[in-house]
Amino acid sequence: MDIGKDKPLSGRISRRKLLGGAATAAVVLVQTATGKAFQAGVSVAELDDPTKIPGVLPGTVGTRSSFEQPVKKPSPTSSRTPLQDLYGTLTPSDLHYERHHGGVPAIDPAKFELVIHGMVERPMVFTLADLKRFPSVSRLAFLECSGNYRGANDGKITPQDICGLTSQSEWTGVALSTLFREVGVSEKATWFLAEGGDAAVMTRSVPMSKGWKDAIIAYAQNGEAVRPEQGYPARLFLPGWEGNTSIKWIRRIEISDQPFMTREETSKYTEQVGPAKIRQFSFTMDARSIITYPSYPARVEKGWIEIRGIAWSGRGKISRVEVSTDAGKSWHLAALQEPVLDKSLTAFRYLWQWNGGPTEIMSRAVDETGYVQPFYKQLLAARGGNMGYHFNPVTAWYLQSDGQVLFRST
Amino acid sequence: MDIGKDKPLSGRISRRKLLGGAATAAVVLVQTATGKAFQAGVSVAELDDPTKIPGVLPGTVGTRSSFEQPVKKPSPTSSRTPLQDLYGTLTPSDLHYERHHGGVPAIDPAKFELVIHGMVERPMVFTLADLKRFPSVSRLAFLECSGNYRGANDGKITPQDICGLTSQSEWTGVALSTLFREVGVSEKATWFLAEGGDAAVMTRSVPMSKGWKDAIIAYAQNGEAVRPEQGYPARLFLPGWEGNTSIKWIRRIEISDQPFMTREETSKYTEQVGPAKIRQFSFTMDARSIITYPSYPARVEKGWIEIRGIAWSGRGKISRVEVSTDAGKSWHLAALQEPVLDKSLTAFRYLWQWNGGPTEIMSRAVDETGYVQPFYKQLLAARGGNMGYHFNPVTAWYLQSDGQVLFRST
Repeated sequence: MDIGKDKPLSGRISRRKLLGGAATAAVVLVQTATGKAFQAGVSVAELDDPTKIPGVLPGTVGTRSSFEQPVKKPSPTSSRTPLQDLYGTLTPSDLHYERHHGGVPAIDPAKFELVIHGMVERPMVFTLADLKRFPSVSRLAFLECSGNYRGANDGKITPQDICGLTSQSEWTGVALSTLFREVGVSEKATWFLAEGGDAAVMTRSVPMSKGWKDAIIAYAQNGEAVRPEQGYPARLFLPGWEGNTSIKWIRRIEISDQPFMTREETSKYTEQVGPAKIRQFSFTMDARSIITYPSYPARVEKGWIEIRGIAWSGRGKISRVEVSTDAGKSWHLAALQEPVLDKSLTAFRYLWQWNGGPTEIMSRAVDETGYVQPFYKQLLAARGGNMGYHFNPVTAWYLQSDGQVLFRST
Repeated sequence: MDIGKDKPLSGRISRRKLLGGAATAAVVLVQTATGKAFQAGVSVAELDDPTKIPGVLPGTVGTRSSFEQPVKKPSPTSSRTPLQDLYGTLTPSDLHYERHHGGVPAIDPAKFELVIHGMVERPMVFTLADLKRFPSVSRLAFLECSGNYRGANDGKITPQDICGLTSQSEWTGVALSTLFREVGVSEKATWFLAEGGDAAVMTRSVPMSKGWKDAIIAYAQNGEAVRPEQGYPARLFLPGWEGNTSIKWIRRIEISDQPFMTREETSKYTEQVGPAKIRQFSFTMDARSIITYPSYPARVEKGWIEIRGIAWSGRGKISRVEVSTDAGKSWHLAALQEPVLDKSLTAFRYLWQWNGGPTEIMSRAVDETGYVQPFYKQLLAARGGNMGYHFNPVTAWYLQSDGQVLFRST
């Protein structure tokens, strides 16, 4: 799509008015601050003109507009980010998805302690103040639950329902490798256990290689202290890996030379990938994308539509996103919003002129390893007919001729 | 500073405990979820052990921990971001600084209209829905008030007080150049007027070149709708330029071939730069930095200290930040957190071992144009002894031998 510098979009975007072109609108003189007057083809009623009323004074903490109340959809164990209501790549911290195994614990930061022990020279206990004194690191990255897929036969399902267990934050903390050096980790160590301080005492085994590479003990999120739902006062953060391994409310790390075979990596968070095959320690989140606009429950008009969405990969950067507007018959490159960052949500856009006929639109992500996001049927076949964790199919949206947008499986 | 992979920091970070090394702590057996037991040199009182109490279930909107309540410092016309309480580069939207000339208006988004008229082929009115249908763009960028400097003779002043009228968000909206094409701007146009819908009907003249280059009509901030204090439902955003030109609650843009000489660019927002010289239309924010840790009111201990801060420039990317720990006698390169983005807050860090003796620490930013952040005295001399807008001096922090950190002018 090329828009010439002096050429308006030819399929006029609806509801715009040419000034003076609306015959029913009263023509009034609006006196401006600069003393100039202009004729506007819109009526300005003094009573609801906000320029006539002194505004609210600055406060200690801002608030959302009462006209904008995005909410997560909570269940007893999770709540989902309203992706269809969001713009760009950041998730407001209070809308970050939640997935808890024993609820959100109340932890006094003055009592917080992180124990690191096991195959180390110096088992140690770190307070929160200790963690904050170490060299710090920040990174923008997505976090995604591995059980992040839902469909619906009637099509009445939103991006929030389908994959709202995806969010993005700037995480700040101490690199776990710094703490590994501090306690003197044994060269023979191959795994560590991360344990949370919640009522589930959530535990996962993580290869030492990930700990050395890019693991963070994060105490800050989006500029401020980590929110309670995200692990306050400190959590493990493993960029690109399934969310449950980024243990929240971290209280203990045990260094070992074998995995610990905790409940969450034996009975849970494994997936059947064939009639007699189960995959374990499938940590990395595969590349995925979803069109967030237009999506259910939106109703669109024919003409120009900017198809918008997000793409991400646990393996690195998104190298491209392809969009189809004819049910997968042909594909077009979407524009990616710079900067495209490693293991980070990437916004994509594709400008399209809809002729009003029924069709399916869909997106597929390709990451820098060459991995291509699969269709639902491909994924199901590769998994021996089993749905489960790490289910990242292409999502299609069906546009009815009346403009109603509905989910379609691929 | 080089930290060897297997070498702990030699000046031990205080309050960390070697496990079992604290003679007064009761040794208890902690039963973990994995069935393994370990001896910890810290007592675990069941009564305040959060693992023994089911946690709070997921909700529709998250909240801050009651232990963390960062606040802006409001006056009748502004409120300041608590920079000393923040981490990384993002400002939570509810902590974004405010500077209003007539308070925050209440605007019904369904009634919002943006008029673009003047030297155009087709004067038009755009609703919020219209703006959202155009191709969109996102960018992470700082916003700073041009009147963003304060000092204090007693040294008891925080980064929030000194330059808390600096914040950063990811802004999303429609490029103003897209709207210029839509209305058919005259080739003879050189300036446009931006007018806000607040009680002050805030107005500024902006060169067309900035409008074509990177101006945005922003309807989203940090993933969600722009907050009321930041211009809901839509604002002008001019990356790198003094905050007051990024007109909030934008309602009118008039295209012209001359500046409009509004109150805010004649009696206000000009600065005296010599005995008989006043600078007008000084739009671009100069490069600046501030150490946010350690800073007043912190009290630090001797040993390793990670000096942390933020740097930014309205002219482009930060190319380097230099830190002095000896009152400006010698300077060292700070590490910059990647990605370093154009006209964006950049986090810097410098690891330093404090011997406990009184000294001054300070930072200075250098941007990609080669501009070097000046000292207070240099700046004052260059301005003919006048303080005013665009005052961006190097800020020093004096470390007393008791660890108390106090502001020092440079």
